[in-house]
Amino acid sequence: MSITSFNPPVRTLMGPGPSDVHPRVTGAMARPCIGHLDPAFVGMMDEVKTMLQYAFQTKNQLTIPVSAPGSAGMEAAFQNLLEHGDKAIVCQNGVFGGRMKEVVERCGATAIMVEDDWGKPVDPQKVEDAFKANPGVKLLAFVHAETSTGARSDAEALSAIAHHHDALVLVDAVTSLGGSELRVDDWNIDAIYSGSQKCLSCTPGLSPVSFSERAIEVITSRKSRVQSWFLDTNLVMGYWGPNAKRAYHHTAPVNALYALHESLVMLQDEGLENSWARHSKNHMVLRAGLEAMGLSFIVDEDYRLPQLNSVTIPDGIDEAEVRSRLLNEFNLEIGAGLGALAGKVWRIGLMGHSSRAENIFLCLSSLEAVLNEMGANIETGVALSAAKAAMK
Amino acid sequence: MSITSFNPPVRTLMGPGPSDVHPRVTGAMARPCIGHLDPAFVGMMDEVKTMLQYAFQTKNQLTIPVSAPGSAGMEAAFQNLLEHGDKAIVCQNGVFGGRMKEVVERCGATAIMVEDDWGKPVDPQKVEDAFKANPGVKLLAFVHAETSTGARSDAEALSAIAHHHDALVLVDAVTSLGGSELRVDDWNIDAIYSGSQKCLSCTPGLSPVSFSERAIEVITSRKSRVQSWFLDTNLVMGYWGPNAKRAYHHTAPVNALYALHESLVMLQDEGLENSWARHSKNHMVLRAGLEAMGLSFIVDEDYRLPQLNSVTIPDGIDEAEVRSRLLNEFNLEIGAGLGALAGKVWRIGLMGHSSRAENIFLCLSSLEAVLNEMGANIETGVALSAAKAAMK
Repeated sequence: MSITSFNPPVRTLMGPGPSDVHPRVTGAMARPCIGHLDPAFVGMMDEVKTMLQYAFQTKNQLTIPVSAPGSAGMEAAFQNLLEHGDKAIVCQNGVFGGRMKEVVERCGATAIMVEDDWGKPVDPQKVEDAFKANPGVKLLAFVHAETSTGARSDAEALSAIAHHHDALVLVDAVTSLGGSELRVDDWNIDAIYSGSQKCLSCTPGLSPVSFSERAIEVITSRKSRVQSWFLDTNLVMGYWGPNAKRAYHHTAPVNALYALHESLVMLQDEGLENSWARHSKNHMVLRAGLEAMGLSFIVDEDYRLPQLNSVTIPDGIDEAEVRSRLLNEFNLEIGAGLGALAGKVWRIGLMGHSSRAENIFLCLSSLEAVLNEMGANIETGVALSAAKAAMK
Repeated sequence: MSITSFNPPVRTLMGPGPSDVHPRVTGAMARPCIGHLDPAFVGMMDEVKTMLQYAFQTKNQLTIPVSAPGSAGMEAAFQNLLEHGDKAIVCQNGVFGGRMKEVVERCGATAIMVEDDWGKPVDPQKVEDAFKANPGVKLLAFVHAETSTGARSDAEALSAIAHHHDALVLVDAVTSLGGSELRVDDWNIDAIYSGSQKCLSCTPGLSPVSFSERAIEVITSRKSRVQSWFLDTNLVMGYWGPNAKRAYHHTAPVNALYALHESLVMLQDEGLENSWARHSKNHMVLRAGLEAMGLSFIVDEDYRLPQLNSVTIPDGIDEAEVRSRLLNEFNLEIGAGLGALAGKVWRIGLMGHSSRAENIFLCLSSLEAVLNEMGANIETGVALSAAKAAMK
C-alpha cells in the first residue's frame, strides 16, 4: 500500500450542492484547531448563533448548527418533536418529502402524505383537507425549496394552515437558506433545518437548525427520551445553549465551524436581502441564455427557485455524456436528475458563491459547445448574447 | 451587528482531544471542494477505506467514516445492531460506558451493566458472570481506551468471552485507534467506532467505523428498520459500499474527508506499529517528568494508556486555575477531569501529532512554573532533567 496525498481537481460547482466554496471559507477552515471548550472557541460559537439567527430571520435562542450534514438536521427536527404514536402530515413534491416520510416512520410516528407532482409546489388546499380529515395531527412538515425539482412552496401560507389547526410547522430549508426569502419568525415556523453547502457556500457537513419557543416546550415536556442521544436537543443545549456552562456533550467539528463562521460573515457583509436579490438576478441571466439555446424549465416561473434550475434535455442527447464532458473538458459540474426526474432533467445550481456571472458564462458557453459537438444545432453565441443582454 | 473573521489563537493541544492537527492535515482541508459524486472524490473515498482498514487492522469491507463525530459513530454501531427488546451487556468504567447505556436504552433495548471502578480496566470475570446470569444477550459493549480515565481494557479477552456466549462484540476505540495496539480481525471485533480527532490527529467531526461480516448479517436481516435514516448502514452502503454505484445518500463532508485522508496517509507513512511505539515512548518521557515533579498517575502501569495521562493534583492547588494559566500564559491546553473525576485529576493527552518531545517539554516546564507560582515547591528543572534522561 502506498497512497499519497489527495489533490482534487479544481472544479466549478453548478450542481445541486455543494456549491463553490469561496477561498475565504476554505482558508478559515485551515486555521489552527483549538479545543471545543476553549473560551476563544466558545466566543466564536456565540457569533455563529447570532449570524444564523440573522440568516434564518429569527430570534429563536435554539438556533445552532448540528454537527453533521443536512439529513442529520432533518432527523434532529423530527426526532426531537415526534414520539411513538404521533401523527404528522408530510408533503411530498420531490425526493426530500419522501425522505421525511422515512424519518417520521422511524420515529414510530404516522406520516399522513399529501402528494403533489414533482416540479409543482405543495398545494395549500390539499394540506387544509388533510388537516380536516385527520384530527390530532401534531405537526406539518414540508420542503420549502425542493432541491430535486427546483420548486418553491409557500411556507407562509402552509404555516398559517398548520397553526390554525394547532399543529407545529417543520420546514426543510436546505436549499433556500441564504438564497431565497425565508423569514422564520414572521412565518411562524417551529422547526427548520438547512445545510451548509448550498446557498451559504460553506463546505458540506453542517446543518443549521432553529427551534421556536413552542417547539422547545414540546421537546422539554416529552414523555419519552429522544431516540438519538447525539441529536437530543435537551443535551445539545448544554453545550450550545444560552448562558450554558458549555458542558461537554460531543466534540464539535471545530474547523468546519470556522468555515461556517466565515461563510456567515460573508453573508452578513453582503446583506441577506442583497444575497436573495443576487440569486434572483443571476437566475434571470442564466435563464435568458438557456432559453436562447432552446432549453426549457420544468418549474413555472411563479414558484421557480432561482438557485436550482431544472431544465429539459434536448431530444436525442445522452444527458450523462454531456455532464461527463462538461466535467472532463471544462471541470464544470452540473447536476443529474434525481428520483422520478433521473435522466429527464439537468439541475443547474446557482447557489451562494456559485451564483455569479463568470459561472453562468462558463456554463452557457461550454454547454453550447458540447451540445453542438453531440449533434445539436444551436446558433453559436446566441446564449451568451441573450445572457449579456439580461445582465443589464 | 458587525462580526468579523475568526482568527483562533495558536494552541498546543494536550487535552483529551482534539489533539494538535498537523499543518499537512489542515492544508488538505483547505483544498478546493468538489462534488460528493465526482469520480475524483469517489477515488479518494476508496483510498480512505483502504487506509482505515489498515488503521483498524481489518479486512472488513464495511470500514468507513461516519459523517459526524464519535458519538454519532457510537449510535451508528448500536442503532444498526440493536432492535427493540434486545439485551446488551454494557461495561462501565468511566464516562463513555455510561453513554453507551443511554444509547442502548434509546434503541429500545435493555442494558445489563457491568461496573468497574473508574481508572480500572473492565474485569473479564464480571463479564463472564454477566453472560452466565443473563441468557440471550445479543452483544457485549465496552470501551477499549477510556478517555475519561486513561485505562485500557483487554479487548481480546473480552471479545473471546462474548463469542463463547454467541454474542456480538461492540467496541469504543475513540482514543485507541492509531495510538495503541488494536487488531479488529485478530481480536474478532464485530463493530467498532473511533473519532478523527484523537490519535489520528485529524480535525474533529468524523467517526471511523468498521463492521464484521457477522455484524452485516445481523444488520441486513433486521426485523425493524434502523431508527436513524442518516446512520442506517443499509443505506449508507449504497454510497460508501464496495462496487457500489455511489448512489446519493447524504452529502458527504468533502473537505473534512480530505483532512482524514491526509492524516491516514501520514499514519501509513509512519507505520502503524511505529505510531504505537511512539505513543508508548513519549508517555515514558512525560511520566518521568511528571513523577519527578511529585505528580502520580491514577491508572496502574499495566493497563495505562500512553496517550491519555490522568494525574493527581497537588494538595491545595486550584486545578482550574492551573489550566487557565497554562492556556492564557502558554497557549497550552490540558484536560480537566470528567464525570466522577471532575476536579480530581488533570488529563494530559499525548495523542497523534501531540505526542512529541517539544510538547512534553512545554508541558513540563510551564506546569512546573505555574505550580511553583501558586505555592508548590518543585525543584527547578527536575522534571525536564528526568524527561531528558527518559528520552534515551
